[in-house]
Amino acid sequence: MAKAVPFFARLSQLRDRLARADVDALLVTGLANVRYLTGFSGSNALVLVTPRDCVLFTDFRYATQVKQEVTAHASVRIEMQNLWTGLWAWLADTAGVERIGFESAHLLHRDFQRLLEQGTRWQWRPLLDEIESLRESKDATEIACIERAVGMAERALAATLQELRVGLTETAVAGILEHHLRDQGSEGFPFATIVASGPRAALPHARAGDRLVTSGDLVLIDFGSVSDGYCSDITRTVVIGRASARQKEVYEVVQRANVKSSGALRVGMVGKDADAVAREYIDGLGFGEAFGHSLGHGIGLEIHEAPRLAKSADSPLPAGAVVTIEPGVYLADWGGVRIEDDVLVTTAGPRVLTSFTRELLEIA
Amino acid sequence: MAKAVPFFARLSQLRDRLARADVDALLVTGLANVRYLTGFSGSNALVLVTPRDCVLFTDFRYATQVKQEVTAHASVRIEMQNLWTGLWAWLADTAGVERIGFESAHLLHRDFQRLLEQGTRWQWRPLLDEIESLRESKDATEIACIERAVGMAERALAATLQELRVGLTETAVAGILEHHLRDQGSEGFPFATIVASGPRAALPHARAGDRLVTSGDLVLIDFGSVSDGYCSDITRTVVIGRASARQKEVYEVVQRANVKSSGALRVGMVGKDADAVAREYIDGLGFGEAFGHSLGHGIGLEIHEAPRLAKSADSPLPAGAVVTIEPGVYLADWGGVRIEDDVLVTTAGPRVLTSFTRELLEIA
Repeated sequence: MAKAVPFFARLSQLRDRLARADVDALLVTGLANVRYLTGFSGSNALVLVTPRDCVLFTDFRYATQVKQEVTAHASVRIEMQNLWTGLWAWLADTAGVERIGFESAHLLHRDFQRLLEQGTRWQWRPLLDEIESLRESKDATEIACIERAVGMAERALAATLQELRVGLTETAVAGILEHHLRDQGSEGFPFATIVASGPRAALPHARAGDRLVTSGDLVLIDFGSVSDGYCSDITRTVVIGRASARQKEVYEVVQRANVKSSGALRVGMVGKDADAVAREYIDGLGFGEAFGHSLGHGIGLEIHEAPRLAKSADSPLPAGAVVTIEPGVYLADWGGVRIEDDVLVTTAGPRVLTSFTRELLEIA
Repeated sequence: MAKAVPFFARLSQLRDRLARADVDALLVTGLANVRYLTGFSGSNALVLVTPRDCVLFTDFRYATQVKQEVTAHASVRIEMQNLWTGLWAWLADTAGVERIGFESAHLLHRDFQRLLEQGTRWQWRPLLDEIESLRESKDATEIACIERAVGMAERALAATLQELRVGLTETAVAGILEHHLRDQGSEGFPFATIVASGPRAALPHARAGDRLVTSGDLVLIDFGSVSDGYCSDITRTVVIGRASARQKEVYEVVQRANVKSSGALRVGMVGKDADAVAREYIDGLGFGEAFGHSLGHGIGLEIHEAPRLAKSADSPLPAGAVVTIEPGVYLADWGGVRIEDDVLVTTAGPRVLTSFTRELLEIA
């Protein structure tokens, strides 16, 4: 995908932000931010962005990979020892870079001390969310990646439901799903696959465990896939056998909350107002206490990123945001239902990227 | 496993260290350290250890899970809002805690600022590796977990090699392996599975990609599994079809380096001396330049932890350390071989936990 990615445009937008933040440069230490700015996907890198330069420091293990991933938009320094030594040497040779921002949310105290140890030669300014804010609005190449990841996820889920049956452990079901995801080309699993059956579907943070899938269970499956670094995040909940009246009732509440809140998304809408669409609906039907998490979050290079759709989220949704819409109802010792889609917010309205059915499936 | 884990002994050892570091308490923010001290496996927690108390702060999403995982050794505070608010309230009610250590390697600058914002009421001292040092020596319950993880990995690898064949993508091979790992009960994948075929086996950080496995390839498979939170980390390299003379030659170099360095491990041996055993052997056969990474690292609750076996590692191996031994030879545009075992260091000598054959397998 490298050619089509607008790295220069991203750098230009970032430089505008740095000028407003009154710094001469930004030290980028968050790896997702490194990838966004440069395309580099390795696990060890520092990037320095100045008005003139974008310099990436990595180590010799990545010498081949970095050449493939990073082209004209950044200059690459391969360090044999410590990336920080390379950074200090580069800065010492560069005039006019004195006030340097750093990523307060992506720098460990241990590494912050390295900055202080450099004395007064440079002034360090903690900054938050400068690149994360840019990443909120996905461009066409990013949307294409997410759409591919969603497609992989949906095909893998369809194949998995064909094999889902009584007597499998949750972990075995996760294995079947992950195998299909790999066969679809997923680069990995952005979070631990959740397969939660029966009463375990009521636990908001269940992973797959050794419980056996049983007739009458609700089975909640929440999983991700990755294409060219970009994530999908989808949840479906199915019934093993025939659904009971109560299962149908709860499912319908969640399904309607999902459709209502997806459909309500607009550019400029504040995160908490989006959250309120689902929450007020569920609350009005008497299940408010049972929806104990927020409505959704951005997805992209990370599985959780800005913007948030939550009671405490005060920021407006920009055009190009891709967010999850994942209302749920969880009843202790009974089970739970969550239906999660990935939705692109455009000036023409919301576009639901997930096409997998939201009807209640009864698995024979 | 909760009952057998010696949480009280761990806390007692930590308290001795804190006394020597001249602090009244330690704020624990590293999640693997939280799990080691308390058994809690959730993704949001703070722990404060004082001479008298061990207090765990987590959020309402984990209310059920934390009750199952944490018993008498720690007191649990469920916070509805922010964990830090709970911490400040607890500290304000507690006399005699003034000098508080924090984990410099596990605290983001953003959160370090929270400490400073509390003013002069408490004095904060950055500490490094206090809990990591304890974790270097595994106790019997930990060794049992790692052995289970190794067993899962070996059975999954054996099953995968039965299915490995020309024409599969590396990603598809990863899918087969991960599926078998799940069927063995692995709780997840501690790092992105590496399946590197043909010339890609020469890349030290290849993941699985879309290259097709081809007759004559070396295929390098490096993967992990997890049992009760503890990781295994194993690599085997096989040939598709009949091995060439060169493939056999390189393989034998790596195989002998593996066996020699595993056998040489002793309690008290310094990490760089262990590394040197493999490195000098490989160097003596003219492949020194082709072994471009360190010999190994500890495994446990994390896939990379102390102690390190590397040129720059000055620390002695304690009894109970479990380390990888993973020499490799990588030749650009040709391929590479790595053979990685997990080895327990005891006063009676090394015990190789991995029993999977180290002979060169030719996959028909």
